[in-house]
Amino acid sequence: MAQKTSIPSGTRDFLPHEMLRRNYIFDTIRSVFKQYGYVPIETPAMENLSTLLGKYGEEGDKLLYRILNSGDAFAAVEPSDLANRNLLSAKICEKGLRYDLTVPFARFVVQHQQDIVFPFKRYQIQPVWRADRPQKGRYREFYQCDADVIGSRSILNEVELVQMVDAVFTQLNIPVTVKINNRKVLSGIAEVMGAAERLIDITIAIDKIDKIGREAVLNELKNKGITEAAIQQLLPILTLSGTNEEQLTRLSDILSASLIGLQGIEELHTIFNYLEMLKLQQTVELDLSLARGLNYYTGAIFEVKANEVTIGSLCGGGRYDDLTGVFGLKDVSGVGISFGADRIYDVLNTLNRFPEATMEHTKVLFLNLGMQESLKAIEYLKAVRAAGIPAEIYPETAKMKKQMEYADKKAIPYVIIIGEEELQCNILSFKDMHSGEQKKTDFEALIKCFLC
Amino acid sequence: MAQKTSIPSGTRDFLPHEMLRRNYIFDTIRSVFKQYGYVPIETPAMENLSTLLGKYGEEGDKLLYRILNSGDAFAAVEPSDLANRNLLSAKICEKGLRYDLTVPFARFVVQHQQDIVFPFKRYQIQPVWRADRPQKGRYREFYQCDADVIGSRSILNEVELVQMVDAVFTQLNIPVTVKINNRKVLSGIAEVMGAAERLIDITIAIDKIDKIGREAVLNELKNKGITEAAIQQLLPILTLSGTNEEQLTRLSDILSASLIGLQGIEELHTIFNYLEMLKLQQTVELDLSLARGLNYYTGAIFEVKANEVTIGSLCGGGRYDDLTGVFGLKDVSGVGISFGADRIYDVLNTLNRFPEATMEHTKVLFLNLGMQESLKAIEYLKAVRAAGIPAEIYPETAKMKKQMEYADKKAIPYVIIIGEEELQCNILSFKDMHSGEQKKTDFEALIKCFLC
Repeated sequence: MAQKTSIPSGTRDFLPHEMLRRNYIFDTIRSVFKQYGYVPIETPAMENLSTLLGKYGEEGDKLLYRILNSGDAFAAVEPSDLANRNLLSAKICEKGLRYDLTVPFARFVVQHQQDIVFPFKRYQIQPVWRADRPQKGRYREFYQCDADVIGSRSILNEVELVQMVDAVFTQLNIPVTVKINNRKVLSGIAEVMGAAERLIDITIAIDKIDKIGREAVLNELKNKGITEAAIQQLLPILTLSGTNEEQLTRLSDILSASLIGLQGIEELHTIFNYLEMLKLQQTVELDLSLARGLNYYTGAIFEVKANEVTIGSLCGGGRYDDLTGVFGLKDVSGVGISFGADRIYDVLNTLNRFPEATMEHTKVLFLNLGMQESLKAIEYLKAVRAAGIPAEIYPETAKMKKQMEYADKKAIPYVIIIGEEELQCNILSFKDMHSGEQKKTDFEALIKCFLC
Repeated sequence: MAQKTSIPSGTRDFLPHEMLRRNYIFDTIRSVFKQYGYVPIETPAMENLSTLLGKYGEEGDKLLYRILNSGDAFAAVEPSDLANRNLLSAKICEKGLRYDLTVPFARFVVQHQQDIVFPFKRYQIQPVWRADRPQKGRYREFYQCDADVIGSRSILNEVELVQMVDAVFTQLNIPVTVKINNRKVLSGIAEVMGAAERLIDITIAIDKIDKIGREAVLNELKNKGITEAAIQQLLPILTLSGTNEEQLTRLSDILSASLIGLQGIEELHTIFNYLEMLKLQQTVELDLSLARGLNYYTGAIFEVKANEVTIGSLCGGGRYDDLTGVFGLKDVSGVGISFGADRIYDVLNTLNRFPEATMEHTKVLFLNLGMQESLKAIEYLKAVRAAGIPAEIYPETAKMKKQMEYADKKAIPYVIIIGEEELQCNILSFKDMHSGEQKKTDFEALIKCFLC
């Protein structure tokens, strides 16, 4: 009996038309990374679990895919181990699948610190795996596209990353808003609220303002035991308005008692000044409610939202001051961004903005209408390919209708017909599949027409 | 205490200079695949174990990486299960990592048969994982680059695949010999030896002739119980000489009593005739000792050897008549090739034949010599990038020596210096890092020089 064909829940096959579209996204992102001097690296799909565990919080540890040791994985297992699942799992699994690109990158930087050039500007486009509950738009295998600079504290890096975001979405023809905030400003806010030690609770609550509204955020803060007096301090901050500069000026009054808060404002000032001068295509705005979940960010934070489609952020990132510390390399500051290819795909699909050219593959199909005819076709085919034009010949001598259907389904724009008559007169028939127009021509004229 | 940084044995990190070289290989292969009308697909890293098990022989099953079920993997495990390792492993692992691209491709074709166009010409470039013992040149994670046509019996497909091999190695500047044989010829040989049922033993033995020599092969056959009479029949076949055509003619005499043998010879004839006409760059030769390990091949088989380096085959493939049968789609014939990127890398490295251009990334570095100077640099930088030239600015205002070292280590060929003097005179200094030459110029002249 035949086996049922299926793939694990939350994973995907990509058909050719999806691959071409995905490659268009990856190629665009990669070309911008290159343009800005970032160099590629790759890390293995499998990392030692000791590298991964404890880096993504308790919830993250549960979502790691673990790989059964090869050889006799159960050799050291005792029946009593069944009572302690964590111990058992550690005995039989030493490796796990990459959960993101950031932790492997930190491990990479420490391991290869003698072989890389600092400031190290690297990009990495690879899949990651998470044993998350699959749902619409959330997969267990998906690609991340990351660019990070490590080993430089200069704000110029932040500026360039925003330029890169601007370049990617402009090239993809997706209007976006780049939201920028700074963790130091959030620390400053917590400080002037008199609740510095509650920074995480406060940022988690503020982060939800877009989703649940101002009142609900204030309630959540109350429920978490933030005092009424502290919340009163927060109110004017949540209602700041005006240009980025106006808001920053107002904010520096409010945060005047917080050294770290003022430092964050100064950094934001610098970023906005540079960006002003660089005249970006996309909108960039200060968003004090932006907090970003990951707690390793320590300076600027970014998030990118599509203007025309309601969907989660398309890109995010920020500065982290001690990513490599856990692996023994202290005091190395970094800043990076990560593009979410799947969401970008969904946005382009919704907006119907994949360029037609991304779908083109083979440009010409030579029909196969008999032994002698196909020999002539193969001769021409060689010349067409040599001219750099992707081309193919239908491999079988099938009915013309069937071969035309093949061209049609594969969206091949031009078909060349060499039948008995064409063979005798040393010409060929050329059909434009889009217009349906068909004409007779000679080979030299055809090649010229393709290359112009 | 800091964690030790390491990666699982048999896996690799790729540093930027390695990535650039690897991408050069992948890009070359991919461009040829495209040129011949092959379209890309991707399949998930994880497949259901039911898809993978039993497809690679008993040894292969052992080399599959299994993934621990997410959630409570041990919920259904009883202490008594520890006595039956296979059962236990099946209870706690339902998924495994991709072992090659062929079985997932067969599964893909059956699963998506309504959504693809036959004959389906697909390529796939993805990593695979094998729990093999790591050794020099053998890894537990490595890329395969496969192109297959499925749904066409035409020999033209074989011809095109050989053309593609020729194009790839010609473009990579690696002289190779493409060895061709046909499984039907091997069946014919077993038939005329009167040992048709011993085909596998015979092909396995013949396959080793290059490694262990003719005498050892004959001994192995004897030890496997092949009769002396049968071996006598084999001798003239192992010593055929002359051109491909001469050998085929001689062979059709020897195999005249075997229908399947003659059919194989006819197919080889057709392939060689086409290739003759197409005037390839690389050597193509009949090799009757070529058997290829995998037993699913049923027609033509290929293998590619480097002419100047002693190393295993760089590429291999062949025709298989029933790859998708196990998944329920019968009578679909296919033919394909697979390039080994790691060995190709080693050959190019040994021969020192990576083009210098593959190593170039950033073309220009702007030095950062102060606030005002860097503002001017950023303005120029934007124009340089807009002209399509990958460029960067050193992010920190560091000593000139340090910045020059950065350019040097990153192999950036040109450096632009904007210091106090340059700023005042509205010019810039331009240094060729290769020749050491430095000159003053204005920006317009510079851009022109870059674009010409």
